Amino acid sequence: MTGNLLIAQSGGPTAVINSSVCGTIVEAKRRAQIRSIYGAINGILGVLDENLIDLRQEAPEAVSGLRGTPSAALGSCRFKLKQEDYSRVMDVFQAHQISYFVYAGGNDSMDTAHKIASLATEKNYELKVMGIPKTVDNDLMVTDHCPGYGSVSRFNAIAVRDAGLDTDAIYTSDTVKVVETMGRDAGWITASTALARDGVDSAPHLIYLPERPFVTSKFLADVKSVYDRIGRVVICVCEGLKDEKGEFVKASSTKVDTDRFGHAQLGGVGDYLTNLISENLGFKARCDKPGTIQRVSMTCASQTDLNEAYEVGQTAVSRAVEGESDKMVTLVRKSNEPYKCETGVVELEKVALKTRKVPDEFIHADSNFVSDAFLRYVKPLIGGPLPEYAHLKRKPVERLLPARR
Amino acid sequence: MTGNLLIAQSGGPTAVINSSVCGTIVEAKRRAQIRSIYGAINGILGVLDENLIDLRQEAPEAVSGLRGTPSAALGSCRFKLKQEDYSRVMDVFQAHQISYFVYAGGNDSMDTAHKIASLATEKNYELKVMGIPKTVDNDLMVTDHCPGYGSVSRFNAIAVRDAGLDTDAIYTSDTVKVVETMGRDAGWITASTALARDGVDSAPHLIYLPERPFVTSKFLADVKSVYDRIGRVVICVCEGLKDEKGEFVKASSTKVDTDRFGHAQLGGVGDYLTNLISENLGFKARCDKPGTIQRVSMTCASQTDLNEAYEVGQTAVSRAVEGESDKMVTLVRKSNEPYKCETGVVELEKVALKTRKVPDEFIHADSNFVSDAFLRYVKPLIGGPLPEYAHLKRKPVERLLPARR
Repeated sequence: MTGNLLIAQSGGPTAVINSSVCGTIVEAKRRAQIRSIYGAINGILGVLDENLIDLRQEAPEAVSGLRGTPSAALGSCRFKLKQEDYSRVMDVFQAHQISYFVYAGGNDSMDTAHKIASLATEKNYELKVMGIPKTVDNDLMVTDHCPGYGSVSRFNAIAVRDAGLDTDAIYTSDTVKVVETMGRDAGWITASTALARDGVDSAPHLIYLPERPFVTSKFLADVKSVYDRIGRVVICVCEGLKDEKGEFVKASSTKVDTDRFGHAQLGGVGDYLTNLISENLGFKARCDKPGTIQRVSMTCASQTDLNEAYEVGQTAVSRAVEGESDKMVTLVRKSNEPYKCETGVVELEKVALKTRKVPDEFIHADSNFVSDAFLRYVKPLIGGPLPEYAHLKRKPVERLLPARR
Repeated sequence: MTGNLLIAQSGGPTAVINSSVCGTIVEAKRRAQIRSIYGAINGILGVLDENLIDLRQEAPEAVSGLRGTPSAALGSCRFKLKQEDYSRVMDVFQAHQISYFVYAGGNDSMDTAHKIASLATEKNYELKVMGIPKTVDNDLMVTDHCPGYGSVSRFNAIAVRDAGLDTDAIYTSDTVKVVETMGRDAGWITASTALARDGVDSAPHLIYLPERPFVTSKFLADVKSVYDRIGRVVICVCEGLKDEKGEFVKASSTKVDTDRFGHAQLGGVGDYLTNLISENLGFKARCDKPGTIQRVSMTCASQTDLNEAYEVGQTAVSRAVEGESDKMVTLVRKSNEPYKCETGVVELEKVALKTRKVPDEFIHADSNFVSDAFLRYVKPLIGGPLPEYAHLKRKPVERLLPARR
């Protein structure tokens, strides 16, 4: 089948989603079946608005430069199509003779792609639809992991190790640090902060995932226990933590008096827990929340992640040209040492709107850290060891005076 | 004068304070006047507790590795000596025959160092005291800039550029982003985020420093104005922002009901302003707060900063051996293009406890950005241009359909 290809990006940006676009463009250029290569600006919104760009007009350096450029070069969106929007999508596809549609995104985007594929079939419009997995949250079903996750994991592993060294140095006044990571529905990102730990007492000391209900008394006891042992505590928490009732863990959002207390619900779980620790245990605590910076940091991107993002882009095109449709490209791990991963495909229906939680075997029995099995899973994804730091042996000088009173 | 040298680190860690320790050790080893080279663990607390280590016992690789290791390898502290503590300091110095004391820190540490120097003179104890400037806040007097500042500036320039690309991509749903940076008393760190801007409409769009009183109505009008022009806004704010009454800008800390509203004062200025924007302008806004991660990020450290930190360590030793005392090493900018900087010294008394604010000529007349003069000042400090990103030219495809209703 010969026709035009359209690619779009959706959902939260990552460090590597542009690598997938690059892989898609490079592979599409190699294929005789593909005439024009279009990009939609701001995802499916760009399709609705017929806001398309011609990617064959981009300089080769700009296309290859996408592999070193974070965020989403075509623009992204969070937009749920209404029923009537789908026919507009088909109108735009028909007008521009789109035979191949590649959509990079998360589980909502895979739902959108699946519905477009179904409608095309229903209308006898020949269209090959392929999804490219893209989410720092790593919560798509079937695929071993998602492009974007390895890089956010590398960023957070380095950030938490550095933040841990910071607390090690100044613990005599700043005793507790809470680092809040992304992850609304699953704890994959928070879990990966365990990669920061390079010694038995190094950060992070505690990790809390939304896969386990948050219990305040247990949390405070955990913090106290680490403090009693080593005098400082670095805690990594997921923005999506929920309590036993299934409510997000944060300050009350009830307002009694908007003039005086209209801003009572400030901050997220990190600030809430920082406050909880100060009030209940009396420790000086502070909160770091890298926010969107963690998901688009190219400085800390994983080379493995960058390569895999490129490959899933290529695979989306090659599979579509070979006649497959209504599928998402997956990553299939073949071996762990040495790490080997191939691409595969899965029906979009099996990933659309579904969320893959961190499984029980990846969570420590105490619910306050990850398991060794998780560390084996995540380690190859960050593209090599963390930067090496010096360690002083600190040979003590003999004391000559009586102890200070 | 022949004797032992003691070095200690104080205050908040940075990416480059260990480079200063490395420079100190390397230079001390070259000097015949210096016998033992000791480090105090956790700053002046380590002196009081006679908790010293022998730095001549460290492997050369560990010492040189300090140049690539963030935080404070000797440990740090925030501790104000009481009057009676000073005589204990002198006892420890005498017991260990300390003739040279090098203290790396901010304006509090320079006060401590100055008082120690004065007491030694008073007691006829021969001691050379040298301060090494160290603060990401860049708020020490006299010196052109402070080691640590170039690296935190590079981190934030990259982080805000990335966070800006993130907002550019997803502005159709996430319209406003507030990035809160460090800086309790001065806005130097926040000001440096202006280095992220690489195009007329790129982030950051607004910058607020504590050198100007924060006025809510003006702030909201500024945000609205940028939004009306380009549809998205990235705002950088300093944690130390104050209103016209001199109060920190944040949520009310008044508690009426600890059971229900005990956590009302969560979050800092970033969360407060995010909330203010959402409530008053109706935009979806989010807050990134890299916190301590910004000050200890080695991945984004400035090579210029690393080199200068090393040099001030060397200079502290060479000046002390030459007989100077009660001084802090300074950085003296000789030319801007090409950037040339030398080391000098200043009396500790002239920097102790004093804070250098961002001067008027570095702040934009509208009080919501920096001036070009500031950009010329800060640019050489971050050690080279930011990583290059690809830019698509986005050649539009001709529209074939009527516009969407």
